[in-house]
Amino acid sequence: MKVYGDIQSGNCYKIKLLTSILGIEHEWVEVDILAKETQTEEFLKKNPNGKIPLLELDDGRVLSESNAILNYLAHGSALSSEDSFQQAKILQWQFFEQYSHEPYIAVARFIAKYLGLPDAKAEEYKSKQLGGHKALQVMETQLGKTTYLVGDKLTIADISLYGYTHVAHEGGFDLSVYPHIKDWIARIRHHPNYVEMA
Amino acid sequence: MKVYGDIQSGNCYKIKLLTSILGIEHEWVEVDILAKETQTEEFLKKNPNGKIPLLELDDGRVLSESNAILNYLAHGSALSSEDSFQQAKILQWQFFEQYSHEPYIAVARFIAKYLGLPDAKAEEYKSKQLGGHKALQVMETQLGKTTYLVGDKLTIADISLYGYTHVAHEGGFDLSVYPHIKDWIARIRHHPNYVEMA
Repeated sequence: MKVYGDIQSGNCYKIKLLTSILGIEHEWVEVDILAKETQTEEFLKKNPNGKIPLLELDDGRVLSESNAILNYLAHGSALSSEDSFQQAKILQWQFFEQYSHEPYIAVARFIAKYLGLPDAKAEEYKSKQLGGHKALQVMETQLGKTTYLVGDKLTIADISLYGYTHVAHEGGFDLSVYPHIKDWIARIRHHPNYVEMA
Repeated sequence: MKVYGDIQSGNCYKIKLLTSILGIEHEWVEVDILAKETQTEEFLKKNPNGKIPLLELDDGRVLSESNAILNYLAHGSALSSEDSFQQAKILQWQFFEQYSHEPYIAVARFIAKYLGLPDAKAEEYKSKQLGGHKALQVMETQLGKTTYLVGDKLTIADISLYGYTHVAHEGGFDLSVYPHIKDWIARIRHHPNYVEMA
């Protein structure tokens, strides 16, 4: 299977981290977003939404959306759950990530790290801080009660939220005020098959 | 079980429509977002993210995020899939909905319908149109190939996308330019257990 991605993107890194933890062999095809490689006719045939990461199976079937890919690759593994409520809680955190976390933390990081925080984007950057901290506080509250986001074991919910949380400082978020998040980051980083973002 | 929701919200209506199609008994607890009923101490104990819909089981366990709730309630039903790739495709469309569709179409509709399109929001409203049409085009492309979003049968992917698509005109989106979407809306509306938004 092939994974089309940009290793600096948290959404793509989620797939890299999961495949490392589960030992899933794949070919990584590096894609340059800023060079508009996700907007070529060839790429849009694979994903009409023009986004990475994208999973391409050996038989040609394709799957987009980072969290859908995580669910597919982790199906039946220890990072998923056989219990329908626990599985729904994993999804709850993944939808939270895409709606209430990523649009603030990942976008602030993109503006700062990729675009160099230009004056024209200063107001947008600032506007992302409140929502980002709100999301971090929701995580902090949960991680004050449980070791991982969905109970006492690592799941793909943690992989999803780890993607952009562990680099949130690159978007201006000071994590020192979230001690439970900091401990959780350290736990994930100590996983024997952990791999760095880049 | 209880469902906390606002029946005018597409995210909440998804749950109403699914429970009607599957005949799932529940108590609907109407919540007024504009009166900040999702920000009370009591509600935030149930969902620290302060959002509806929220599912509360009889044993007190709670589940948030509309699409996570759909997956939980549809588990094992004809609207879900036993095949892991098909199930991942359902999730792909649901994550697409939350990231690439809802933030444009639902937000434009909220500004127009709930807030009365005030001058202060005119620019934001206008900025939502391009992204909304992009999302509708991605749906149109798929529905030109398959009867429903994931093949030839109705799944919770369709329920998710139907929520805000069928009221997209309230956000200024003219659906007459998307004939496949219009046919798909008609197909869903003709389901024997279909229920209107309000």
